[in-house]
Amino acid sequence: MLKLKTCLALELPSINAALRQATLRLPTAVRPVAEHIFNAGGKRLRPFLVLLMARLFGYTGKDIYSLAVTLEMLHAATLIHDDVLDNADTRRGKPAVHTIFGATMSILAGDAMLSTANELVADHNDLALVRCFSQAISRTAAGEIMEIAAMRNLTQPAALYREIILGKTAWLIRSACVMGALKAGASPAQVADAATYGEELGIAFQIVDDALDVAPASVIGKPSGGDVREGKLTPPVRMYREHLAAASPAALADFDKHFSAGDLSAADAENVGAQIRLLGFDQRTRELAGECLDKARAALEKLPDGAEKRHLYTMADYVQQREK
Amino acid sequence: MLKLKTCLALELPSINAALRQATLRLPTAVRPVAEHIFNAGGKRLRPFLVLLMARLFGYTGKDIYSLAVTLEMLHAATLIHDDVLDNADTRRGKPAVHTIFGATMSILAGDAMLSTANELVADHNDLALVRCFSQAISRTAAGEIMEIAAMRNLTQPAALYREIILGKTAWLIRSACVMGALKAGASPAQVADAATYGEELGIAFQIVDDALDVAPASVIGKPSGGDVREGKLTPPVRMYREHLAAASPAALADFDKHFSAGDLSAADAENVGAQIRLLGFDQRTRELAGECLDKARAALEKLPDGAEKRHLYTMADYVQQREK
Repeated sequence: MLKLKTCLALELPSINAALRQATLRLPTAVRPVAEHIFNAGGKRLRPFLVLLMARLFGYTGKDIYSLAVTLEMLHAATLIHDDVLDNADTRRGKPAVHTIFGATMSILAGDAMLSTANELVADHNDLALVRCFSQAISRTAAGEIMEIAAMRNLTQPAALYREIILGKTAWLIRSACVMGALKAGASPAQVADAATYGEELGIAFQIVDDALDVAPASVIGKPSGGDVREGKLTPPVRMYREHLAAASPAALADFDKHFSAGDLSAADAENVGAQIRLLGFDQRTRELAGECLDKARAALEKLPDGAEKRHLYTMADYVQQREK
Repeated sequence: MLKLKTCLALELPSINAALRQATLRLPTAVRPVAEHIFNAGGKRLRPFLVLLMARLFGYTGKDIYSLAVTLEMLHAATLIHDDVLDNADTRRGKPAVHTIFGATMSILAGDAMLSTANELVADHNDLALVRCFSQAISRTAAGEIMEIAAMRNLTQPAALYREIILGKTAWLIRSACVMGALKAGASPAQVADAATYGEELGIAFQIVDDALDVAPASVIGKPSGGDVREGKLTPPVRMYREHLAAASPAALADFDKHFSAGDLSAADAENVGAQIRLLGFDQRTRELAGECLDKARAALEKLPDGAEKRHLYTMADYVQQREK
């Protein structure tokens, strides 16, 4: 049996060729923007999930590639909009789109990419696919909006965290699995299991991301504790506050003051990150991700056996173990 | 027979009620943004065109309102993105969305509105409607991008102007007519005529807008010659340059220098506007719009007779004559 990495490497040329075809459907002026972000790399996780899920249900049509890349185009559009909003300098190790093409072009290019991807989905003549895709755009935007609204807010309900990451990260991954299953003509129950797998995989992916945020700078290649400075109440930060509440209410009050005000220095954040690691909260956060992945695996168990199913199990293991 | 204005006034409550229903489909955090822009006014031209065109082809279903307002939501989303990009202070006489909700929320709200409108179209279970709508988003973004790319550029081909305004203004109006006809089950030839009517009406609408740009400030309520300062090669500006080329090559060279550099003062632009009026180029621009409206009327002539057809003729007259 091919290993997951080998399988992905074998599929990459076809995925990238379909992405080039999709780019040709964009308005001429936007193509260089799309080419820039596609050429900057990216793991193509979402297209790959569409492929795996469609094949797991026995679909062999070559048009699966043109469907798969619509989610990569949508994902790229959201990254372009995000980078304008965050005024980020780099993306995937290359200059961010807006630093080269300007904010105006980047926003409009993102809009054109969203809608062209939608047209490409409509080419598959299946309203269920169109609905799934449109909903993916709405839910992703909604997740980001909820995250912004919740920043530096210490009184937010604990359940909001899952809502936020379900939107901003997991919904696209869920949609990839659903679209692959729908394209293959899976039954409603099977589509629901594919959705659960994708949703829990996506949630776990973001939880591990939030655990990695407090890893040493030498490991992640950026300052540790970025989320703390930005005022995001991620699981390790929540655990850290619970620890302070028991250990030293004065220290908690001090932390809360700076967390809410958003005036923690880079050194403060590094220090919080180091404490979180010492207390083992990064590992406990990974355990939370592990619980989600168990649900993903349970959903997967119900799906048809085969090479794709084994790859999807491997993907769950990879999410749990990834170190950067 | 009801006059066009009376007919629109009678329809407005149903259009606004459908718009409120559509707003409820947005992510909660985005609703205040949408409510702000919908409550700020707007003529509801696009929904009204959907209604008129559907009824002209005999459609009487009440679900036409839910389809009609998708284009208003899309239109509002593009206005929100535009105002962020232009850093505009006001829209429809009220504070622009981003001055109240911030740029980040405005961009994400625009994204959510685009995709939710797309979902609402998909609810009508007709892939032709979905394709038309997605294309409307792409074409509008493409038109705006072309306009930005062409700014201050004096060597652009004359035909580019129509391409730009076809995208940035006319395509949504065209799409309103096409979607109304499609919903009513019109034949492909009839849909094509409805498309021509909408396209030419939309082109004429923008040409008249560009003629109005050089009207006296007292008439339009903003400084005259804004397009000249922004470096837009609109028909009156093009005619003015042709006049200078014949009358005084030195004056043309001077104008071109400042037009390209984008350093014309408000007083310079007012002065150019006054000269354009004196030379009658604003009227000649309106005549260009008249030619488009003749094409719109010719397409309309082929469509079924009735009250709606008369309203659509009146709408063409209104576009030609409007003074602000």
